Amino acid sequence: MSSPFQRIAILGPGLLGGSIAMACRARLPEVRLQVWGRREEALRAVAEQQLAEATSTDVGEVVRGAELVILCVPVEHMGKLAGEMVGHLEAEAIVTDVGSVKTMVLEQVGPVVRRRAHFVGSHPMAGSEQAGFEAARADLFEGASCLVIPDEGEDKSHKSYRTYVEKVARFWESLGCQVTEMSAREHDAAVAWVSHLPHLLAAVLVNTVADCAPGALPLCGPGFRDTTRVAAGPPDMWTGIFSLNRTALRDSTEAMIEKLREFATLLDGFDESGIHERLRTAKLGRDRLKNY
Amino acid sequence: MSSPFQRIAILGPGLLGGSIAMACRARLPEVRLQVWGRREEALRAVAEQQLAEATSTDVGEVVRGAELVILCVPVEHMGKLAGEMVGHLEAEAIVTDVGSVKTMVLEQVGPVVRRRAHFVGSHPMAGSEQAGFEAARADLFEGASCLVIPDEGEDKSHKSYRTYVEKVARFWESLGCQVTEMSAREHDAAVAWVSHLPHLLAAVLVNTVADCAPGALPLCGPGFRDTTRVAAGPPDMWTGIFSLNRTALRDSTEAMIEKLREFATLLDGFDESGIHERLRTAKLGRDRLKNY
Repeated sequence: MSSPFQRIAILGPGLLGGSIAMACRARLPEVRLQVWGRREEALRAVAEQQLAEATSTDVGEVVRGAELVILCVPVEHMGKLAGEMVGHLEAEAIVTDVGSVKTMVLEQVGPVVRRRAHFVGSHPMAGSEQAGFEAARADLFEGASCLVIPDEGEDKSHKSYRTYVEKVARFWESLGCQVTEMSAREHDAAVAWVSHLPHLLAAVLVNTVADCAPGALPLCGPGFRDTTRVAAGPPDMWTGIFSLNRTALRDSTEAMIEKLREFATLLDGFDESGIHERLRTAKLGRDRLKNY
Repeated sequence: MSSPFQRIAILGPGLLGGSIAMACRARLPEVRLQVWGRREEALRAVAEQQLAEATSTDVGEVVRGAELVILCVPVEHMGKLAGEMVGHLEAEAIVTDVGSVKTMVLEQVGPVVRRRAHFVGSHPMAGSEQAGFEAARADLFEGASCLVIPDEGEDKSHKSYRTYVEKVARFWESLGCQVTEMSAREHDAAVAWVSHLPHLLAAVLVNTVADCAPGALPLCGPGFRDTTRVAAGPPDMWTGIFSLNRTALRDSTEAMIEKLREFATLLDGFDESGIHERLRTAKLGRDRLKNY
């Protein structure tokens, strides 16, 4: 599959930005890559691995000439970065991002980008508890789900804006993603359930055991390790995500608390058939994930 | 490392029983293995892979001559199986098990075994969401934590009983485990935190998302998959475990609910520094697991 864009600027060579560069190199040899980072040091590894035709700490220099600009910085910094680069964008450039929340990103980035170009939100559901360029991998996006979110401020049914959305979708497909288009609101609700709530549970589980039964931690097996893996993710980034999606996350957390309370009641009442029924349903649900 | 036992009977060739047989074959060539299963079919694979010197559906035949008998059936069936085999045990035989709860197993199995021989509880903290002999692996116990629990009905400080406990510990070490000795009560509290609570959370998370946001499930990424992996475990087995350890599990679940409620309050109050502090503490706690 070829890329719908020939010149791509990646802003922020961390886990996701670095993996996009590597995936482009591996799959899309025709693409020219331009990478911006705030620190020289971060760009050195990109240059050493010959992942980009150009690297710079000057964002204007990097976005100039790019048909697609991908914001790969933490969500809470995207608005500021958009302001810094917008004056240098090409008139027909498309800007996208990889942030884990969308309503706030669209509110903060959309209007800034629309002054000169076009914005289409993206959220590739890939990554790990690791952070930074050192953890980047060329195959990070293979088989991953990627959500594409049209800018609410655009005329979404307009033919030319549809073309931009479709080009962004085709770009992610060319890196191996399964693309689903949805609204920012739908996106933020969905990820509150399948990404932010699991992260919150993992973090709270680690803290609860560390507080209530610290001596049990060294005994843990593979189940505890897997269930809590994401809790090792970067706290700054996740504080930003949780804060920007706090309403949807609060709702999913409340629903989880409610269901946990029901389960505690079954344990209290020694209701074996109720316990079995819930474990059976959970197994069926978890087994079904293999089909996605 | 050599085995402290020359003749070992494994009762139940499932994930754990099968893995013990494979690990003995790989590491302890001097050991003679005798395997019992309720169904001929289950024993066929054991025989085909030449994992045992003898296999039979007659439990008396299998335990006869064994110095160590390992109960590898679901916890709720152990009492019955102990009754079926006790008349055939050698006088100096040691019986152990691999069950995930200990207070109830000791109450149900200990007095039966003590009529003729000696019981020492074990819990190798290894396994996966898979079940059955098909999932068995020779390296399942390498680096795993194994808890060894003396029988409350024995004189635990008596020299000969100490010898039995130490032989059982040495056996698990010879399969690659890190052994910790503790009481049944300490065991059940510890595993409620690091094994049963994570399982309950994984199951309830799958059910909550399936109920409240079924459309979000196909979008899930590696974080949701890892956090919920154990929910695919066998419901019958886990219903038994939850039921037999319901008091400790109810306590750990209540503590978790309490901490989740605190986190929901931080989200409600948009308390970014409180959120950050909890995510930072969780990351430190999770990173520390790498040392165990």
